[in-house]
Amino acid sequence: MAFVTGSPEIRTERPLFCSILANTLLSVVPGISGAGPSPEKTLLTPILDAELIACGKISSMPMRPDTPTGCPTPASITRAIMELCGLSPLFINGGLAHTPTVPCLDTYGSPGEDPRFRDAVPAAGALFRKGRSIGMFLGNVSDLLVLGEWVPGGTTTSLCILRGLGYDALVSSSYVRNPVRMKEEVWGIVERRLREGGYRAPLDIVRCCGDPMIPIAAGIAATYPGSVILAGGTQMLSVAALLKGMNLPVPFVATTCYVRDDPSANFAEVAGMIGSPVSYVDPGFGELGHSGLARYCIGEVKEGMGAGGAMLLAWLMGHSPDTIRNRILHTVHGYA
Amino acid sequence: MAFVTGSPEIRTERPLFCSILANTLLSVVPGISGAGPSPEKTLLTPILDAELIACGKISSMPMRPDTPTGCPTPASITRAIMELCGLSPLFINGGLAHTPTVPCLDTYGSPGEDPRFRDAVPAAGALFRKGRSIGMFLGNVSDLLVLGEWVPGGTTTSLCILRGLGYDALVSSSYVRNPVRMKEEVWGIVERRLREGGYRAPLDIVRCCGDPMIPIAAGIAATYPGSVILAGGTQMLSVAALLKGMNLPVPFVATTCYVRDDPSANFAEVAGMIGSPVSYVDPGFGELGHSGLARYCIGEVKEGMGAGGAMLLAWLMGHSPDTIRNRILHTVHGYA
Repeated sequence: MAFVTGSPEIRTERPLFCSILANTLLSVVPGISGAGPSPEKTLLTPILDAELIACGKISSMPMRPDTPTGCPTPASITRAIMELCGLSPLFINGGLAHTPTVPCLDTYGSPGEDPRFRDAVPAAGALFRKGRSIGMFLGNVSDLLVLGEWVPGGTTTSLCILRGLGYDALVSSSYVRNPVRMKEEVWGIVERRLREGGYRAPLDIVRCCGDPMIPIAAGIAATYPGSVILAGGTQMLSVAALLKGMNLPVPFVATTCYVRDDPSANFAEVAGMIGSPVSYVDPGFGELGHSGLARYCIGEVKEGMGAGGAMLLAWLMGHSPDTIRNRILHTVHGYA
Repeated sequence: MAFVTGSPEIRTERPLFCSILANTLLSVVPGISGAGPSPEKTLLTPILDAELIACGKISSMPMRPDTPTGCPTPASITRAIMELCGLSPLFINGGLAHTPTVPCLDTYGSPGEDPRFRDAVPAAGALFRKGRSIGMFLGNVSDLLVLGEWVPGGTTTSLCILRGLGYDALVSSSYVRNPVRMKEEVWGIVERRLREGGYRAPLDIVRCCGDPMIPIAAGIAATYPGSVILAGGTQMLSVAALLKGMNLPVPFVATTCYVRDDPSANFAEVAGMIGSPVSYVDPGFGELGHSGLARYCIGEVKEGMGAGGAMLLAWLMGHSPDTIRNRILHTVHGYA
């Protein structure tokens, strides 16, 4: 398989990798998110993974950057790429339940509420405007923006956003067995709220049932003057769909082949409906001799913290697939 | 008078203007700081001025960006320069009592405590390390860093740091009449705490009696790979003195002629002792026909939010003194 399918034609001299960290209280509902050792601890995962990427290890808490099955967090992939490319990532705090341990560009938002019971992102409009101002700043200091996200539970909010905007979407999951029934139950309740509340405008739908990452990412993409690559799976499709709903240009999306190949989702189909060009990265984790990375191939984790887009960035910067794979393996072995 | 005295030899293609916002609880002691309509409200001034620079106006609270005497905040000078140069500033939250209204790169610090009674910056070491990581990130995205600060009450903490590090300093003030006696009283108490607590290492002295801006600015300057200009008055001399005390290179400092000419301070002398090269900007505010700006010449405000360094940056980017002055006048008239 080719390392990259559908590569964008982008030259860059000043690339920047950013990741938006946020929480939705949906992630503490048991069974919704696999991004943490317990539902309550999913709220901490973005903070710990940012610390891993920024510092090379997690020292603030006694946690390991693996799933219980030994699958390395996608943040370790992003860390490996930052080291390989000599880049310092920028983290954006879009609304977290706990205080980050590394500096973040903070929007001073709040975690998303549970969209079954109340408006999930009351400040959606303000967050979009803050995203716009961040996009202008980032455009001052870079010519290519690879924009990732880390929102445990975010595939469920993205399901609601995509459906709410009229797309017949099935979203992916960090679990091998996608908890489709639970997500559909959430959507069933949210659909009624959307209908009865008369939410129509795209940002109103985000207010009703999204998470804080979505309006911030859309605001950044709306004003960033260079090339933007939304780095993520179905969650970034909800950002692209929001932009399209607002009659704004739809950016490039980059993700892993593991998201594309998820039989419980329909990523490529929805991307086609939105009109997002997509780049898929196939890092060939099955042939590296690492049992944890090989689990990505059977559908565990799949993506996160912009790992797919980060690998694409390394490739755009001229690193060979072998160099990229070896660096990831080296980084992941460092935690063993 | 020349617009710039002692200009650095710097060429820049990717300049970045940053300002570190922080509080010290010293500013709520009546009479210490003139940076706000009341002692309690000095805690809000950095947030309001950041909003003014980022948004062009203050809409979050019914406050005017002037002193009670009609002297425009130095933030309006910085705003004018950002517009003139087409730059988006980056604000760093070094530890504020209230939540900012615009996005900030947040170090997740706390306001400095009153150094008369307890350690002012218990996290000084951690903030220095966070500054180091921010400096590396900023070096990824720029080649010249103009680093300002906004810490109401910060001339008093800087007095303590400079004296604690062995410099016979007299510091400046935003008041026309520098409250020298009050500052000396603070120093008298702090001196005893320093002596009795056995504080020796430079970062320990900051922990005892500094404010959060000082270790963050020093950490940034320690790792930033391009040219750094510390934009500020005596407060930036305390950062330079800390760096020198840690055997790290001493950066360039830029400030206004109003700080140099403050007869209650000895800025140039202390800069010479530290070994900081200094650039002084004389914007000639007395000849612009604006009574509020003219008050800078009689010693009110003098400097703040990196205004001196911002004017130097515009000049380094090729803007003429007349263009710079006219832009400032235009911006200040916009609030009238």
